[in-house]
Amino acid sequence: MKVVEAIEAIRNEVIAAKQTGLSIGFVPTMGYLHEGHVSLIEAARKDHDFVVLSIFVNPLQFGPNEDLDRYPRDFQRDEQIAQKAGVDVIFYPSVPEMYPTNMPMSIHVTSGVNVLCGSSRPGHFDGVATVVMKLLQIVQPNEAYFGQKDAQQLAIIMNMVDAFNVPVIIHGCPTVREEDGLAKSSRNVYLTKEERDEAPFLYEALKEGAKLIRSGETSRAFIRAELEKRLESGSGKVDYIDVLSYPSLEQSERLSGKVILAVAYVYKNARLIDNYIVDIQGEK
Amino acid sequence: MKVVEAIEAIRNEVIAAKQTGLSIGFVPTMGYLHEGHVSLIEAARKDHDFVVLSIFVNPLQFGPNEDLDRYPRDFQRDEQIAQKAGVDVIFYPSVPEMYPTNMPMSIHVTSGVNVLCGSSRPGHFDGVATVVMKLLQIVQPNEAYFGQKDAQQLAIIMNMVDAFNVPVIIHGCPTVREEDGLAKSSRNVYLTKEERDEAPFLYEALKEGAKLIRSGETSRAFIRAELEKRLESGSGKVDYIDVLSYPSLEQSERLSGKVILAVAYVYKNARLIDNYIVDIQGEK
Repeated sequence: MKVVEAIEAIRNEVIAAKQTGLSIGFVPTMGYLHEGHVSLIEAARKDHDFVVLSIFVNPLQFGPNEDLDRYPRDFQRDEQIAQKAGVDVIFYPSVPEMYPTNMPMSIHVTSGVNVLCGSSRPGHFDGVATVVMKLLQIVQPNEAYFGQKDAQQLAIIMNMVDAFNVPVIIHGCPTVREEDGLAKSSRNVYLTKEERDEAPFLYEALKEGAKLIRSGETSRAFIRAELEKRLESGSGKVDYIDVLSYPSLEQSERLSGKVILAVAYVYKNARLIDNYIVDIQGEK
Repeated sequence: MKVVEAIEAIRNEVIAAKQTGLSIGFVPTMGYLHEGHVSLIEAARKDHDFVVLSIFVNPLQFGPNEDLDRYPRDFQRDEQIAQKAGVDVIFYPSVPEMYPTNMPMSIHVTSGVNVLCGSSRPGHFDGVATVVMKLLQIVQPNEAYFGQKDAQQLAIIMNMVDAFNVPVIIHGCPTVREEDGLAKSSRNVYLTKEERDEAPFLYEALKEGAKLIRSGETSRAFIRAELEKRLESGSGKVDYIDVLSYPSLEQSERLSGKVILAVAYVYKNARLIDNYIVDIQGEK
């Protein structure tokens, strides 16, 4: 496995691989890899001959009061995990390599963005879309892999690839969970023992909400209130609870079709997100 | 020469050409071709084996009170000109082919945009950047050709390709002029006989301004005032006159380095633009 830091170097790696007829799978990450990332690498490995992993903590997607500086990083550990999972090249650029000057423009997302994480993290998805567009232009993979855990991010990236006709397939992979149901996340390391013990109740609440929907409940307000009730007992604070159409992320008081139940919950040093997708037609 | 209307069709044409080892030159236009466009096609023809011309009047770059509906169109004439100039394929998409739904996001230009045409055409360059990004993703050329006449557009597209690492070379070609100096433009057909006779004074004024700069004048205000004086006698109205650094398009009261003198002038049915670039260091 190679590690390259320069844009030109990763391009040369990919060009060389393509010239020998290999197809390219790409897994963009912010590092501090966990089994969720490993599942993305494995999916890419299964479908493609040559797997590129990028590790870049993108300043553009962090707000001024967010956790950019203390976002967890451990490159040596990431390197070992990546090698074991079958990555061919890690692209590990510095901030000046990705942003040699202030960006004179960015992608501005106007749809599916004023809900869920978008409403509490203004500009976040502009930063995500902008860096993913850059990475897709740099790596030029056949297919790129993202986790369903970041459901809004996945929806927006799918929209972006459609909107700008980027020649790549976007692949959404299921959320990987701890044994007790907590969604794997790089930010889980910031939970206290008590918080960690409590945190699986997020997924439990989502599953209960999904059960209500499956049993015929179609009121968005009712489901939100039920989820709220279940999370009241927690030691953290609800950032949002919502039930929206998926992947369009529109609010409708009467639920129908494919919907996403989504929650963001704030502990002392970590904000956790999780979601559950139910297809009302499909499952009834 | 082929004409294709579907995104998939132009992609297949380009893929087939690349597979036989051909390099791709691309000339994006809004049609109603004139000798300016022909010079772009000829430059592409000279450098590349396979030349794609796109003709698409992009609604996104027209403001609500602008001339989208009456923008001149004559596809049959364009087809003849393109064939004669050596185009291999014309990509001629409909609006629904390019924008099947409302765009859920766009490129938002924040630098080099509040001057010249950007200040009188809010959102114009967002529309330009967005459609050019789409066209570059669709066609995936080795090199794309733009006219220096639209100097701000050229600067912003060069910035875009850098900012998003789009794997393409952007080539700026010199403005093509009528014998009397008027810059070729699809909008020239809208000039009355009197306006057409008068219009070359725009280029004359720019040349005079450039002469002053070459002779040592470094005051932006003075040059602007001189240009203003020269255009006062005209039957139209000055939209802007400016002298800026190029290609960064920054305002500085003391001129130095490479600068652009630029003018936009409004006649009854046509808004004309022109510019002149002087390299103060290089020419002194």
